Amino acid sequence: MSAPLSFNILARDGKARRGAITTAHGRFDTPAFMPVGTAGALKSLTPEQVASTGTQIVLANTYHLLLRPGPSIVAGLGGLHRFMQWNGAILTDSGGFQVFSLADLRRMDDDGVVFRSHIDGASITLTPEVSIAVQNQLGADIIMAFDECPPLPADDAALSAAVGRTVRWARRCKQAHGDQPQALYGIVQGGLNIGLRRSCLADLVDIGFPGYAIGGLSVGEPPPEMWSLLDDFADDLPGDRPRYLMGVGTPLDLVHAVSSGMDQFDCVLPTRNGRKGYAFTSTGVVRLRNAEHRLSREPLDAACDCYCCRWFCRGYLRHLFQIGETLGGTLVSLHNIAFYQRLMSRMRTEIDRGSFAAWKLAFLNGPLGCPAAAAPNHPG
Amino acid sequence: MSAPLSFNILARDGKARRGAITTAHGRFDTPAFMPVGTAGALKSLTPEQVASTGTQIVLANTYHLLLRPGPSIVAGLGGLHRFMQWNGAILTDSGGFQVFSLADLRRMDDDGVVFRSHIDGASITLTPEVSIAVQNQLGADIIMAFDECPPLPADDAALSAAVGRTVRWARRCKQAHGDQPQALYGIVQGGLNIGLRRSCLADLVDIGFPGYAIGGLSVGEPPPEMWSLLDDFADDLPGDRPRYLMGVGTPLDLVHAVSSGMDQFDCVLPTRNGRKGYAFTSTGVVRLRNAEHRLSREPLDAACDCYCCRWFCRGYLRHLFQIGETLGGTLVSLHNIAFYQRLMSRMRTEIDRGSFAAWKLAFLNGPLGCPAAAAPNHPG
Repeated sequence: MSAPLSFNILARDGKARRGAITTAHGRFDTPAFMPVGTAGALKSLTPEQVASTGTQIVLANTYHLLLRPGPSIVAGLGGLHRFMQWNGAILTDSGGFQVFSLADLRRMDDDGVVFRSHIDGASITLTPEVSIAVQNQLGADIIMAFDECPPLPADDAALSAAVGRTVRWARRCKQAHGDQPQALYGIVQGGLNIGLRRSCLADLVDIGFPGYAIGGLSVGEPPPEMWSLLDDFADDLPGDRPRYLMGVGTPLDLVHAVSSGMDQFDCVLPTRNGRKGYAFTSTGVVRLRNAEHRLSREPLDAACDCYCCRWFCRGYLRHLFQIGETLGGTLVSLHNIAFYQRLMSRMRTEIDRGSFAAWKLAFLNGPLGCPAAAAPNHPG
Repeated sequence: MSAPLSFNILARDGKARRGAITTAHGRFDTPAFMPVGTAGALKSLTPEQVASTGTQIVLANTYHLLLRPGPSIVAGLGGLHRFMQWNGAILTDSGGFQVFSLADLRRMDDDGVVFRSHIDGASITLTPEVSIAVQNQLGADIIMAFDECPPLPADDAALSAAVGRTVRWARRCKQAHGDQPQALYGIVQGGLNIGLRRSCLADLVDIGFPGYAIGGLSVGEPPPEMWSLLDDFADDLPGDRPRYLMGVGTPLDLVHAVSSGMDQFDCVLPTRNGRKGYAFTSTGVVRLRNAEHRLSREPLDAACDCYCCRWFCRGYLRHLFQIGETLGGTLVSLHNIAFYQRLMSRMRTEIDRGSFAAWKLAFLNGPLGCPAAAAPNHPG
């Protein structure tokens, strides 16, 4: 059996890497942004619309699919690619993060977790073995080890305990996964403690994975602390394997993380903010509900060639949000993903050219270059 | 100035007519179904998706656009076509029907109506002159006279009073409209009373309009009573002008109405039912929430080539409705409109071939051929 994933680094610029990952469902360029298709759908978008943004790989949440419709239904309908009609690559997370953030956690020990579904209160047990079995059934190209992800701030004792459990669970995940034709990534925990991160990584490398993820960031800490940890630690991850920064982030976060040597990213920000009328644009964040847009015939972003920006004016988009019409969320989600994908493409080009550092400096001096400007305050 | 609308009848078969209407924004084939783009958007669909269904003309509601964003905003943004990026033909209704069905009506007399907005309670006056002025600002290709539309059942005195007022208002509408480059249709009222219908029509023909609509049907009466009225009356409408049956209907209603000689139709049924997971298909109405679809790999309608039916299985569509994901409504609305447009196309072909009567008989014996099967019971 051929390896389920191959990774080629095509160019380096400082610590930043430009490459390509090939899976059973085609190739995607790195650094790569993966929009989130929560329960097998990118909210309010067709796969055709998602593909039009330049997206090559999407993420789906094991937690949501486990609850509804359940992995046996997805498998019975031909697996996740066929189910959601996404023919490019797919990555599923392990379900752990949503258990901690969404569910009513009833018990956690070394075996795993027992939680109540946030949908119907059903009691569900999730262990490393269950998570892998579910992800095997779903059939994504890349799957994730089941880890413990403590929110920050956390003290060193809590972080250390989570690291120990994460490593023990990673070993069980690899064992459970066996030789299924999916690439299983290990996840490094350790919060902002670089010593713990390095110790966790060393143990994971001993186990051996085709890709490594950094989990447990963007979970409460100030962005500059995350950037600093990435700058110190990301390049410690094995150089010949994909490096995935989970659940991150703003455009500014992505620039910092690529600069530190990370390759893959996912975040709900472009779609969640899109549904609320917050748009990322080349001139900064635009809040479409603002009255200033009432009579604006301008496109959302004159520098963007997405379907939204090619055809619709800000005045119309504002109207859609004012009346609560879902088409507004569709169009701005589409734009935001296109914006993110263009940003990734630009970074890949700058790495190819050896001009990433200069480009990064210009970005930091631009409209999305400070944390306050990079993302609106969006509760939930 | 050239006429804002031209109508050519290309074939006749019994009372059924097949033709084409040319407007400033292109031509559309008749009999024509116009999906409803309530406040300047077909709910959850992009104009590109709407066009993919074969739709050539859409309807927008003056009442909704009057309330939000207001006609001066639409005009300031370049008019309705540019606003909603629909480059085909558009028809706006007069606002009257929604005033009676949605608003809190405060006063009605021969001058017009005063109502409270269902959005913010604002007091708004709508008269024939205001309705026409608003529709002139919106800039649709076809606009409608402001009429009084009583719900059925109504007694002859009420119907007669509504007819008298409708005729007086129609005269004021034509006067107010002047020579604006839009086609203003008159609306015939009179309920199920054919004498009143004929008297109303005679008065409207005296005033003179480029098209005539039948209003005040599908407002509470049993479908067979509507079909019977249409069969007796539709062909009384001037033969050389488009005939528009307002707010109708189910596929079965459309077949009866085309058979009676009507040319244009609008209805929220395909989109409203689509958002609820009710699909019109070649094998009957499909309720996608039904558990029987859980593991179905079948397309929604094997006889349909729309985006939804080409790519997605019923099991996935059911999942989208189960989780409340708007993509489900998008896909099934798209399918339902495509189903309606294919039905219209088929009727045009059968009229062309002179085989409409035989085809109609087969339709009546088919899965959508009885009223109970033709539309699910869908409150609101």
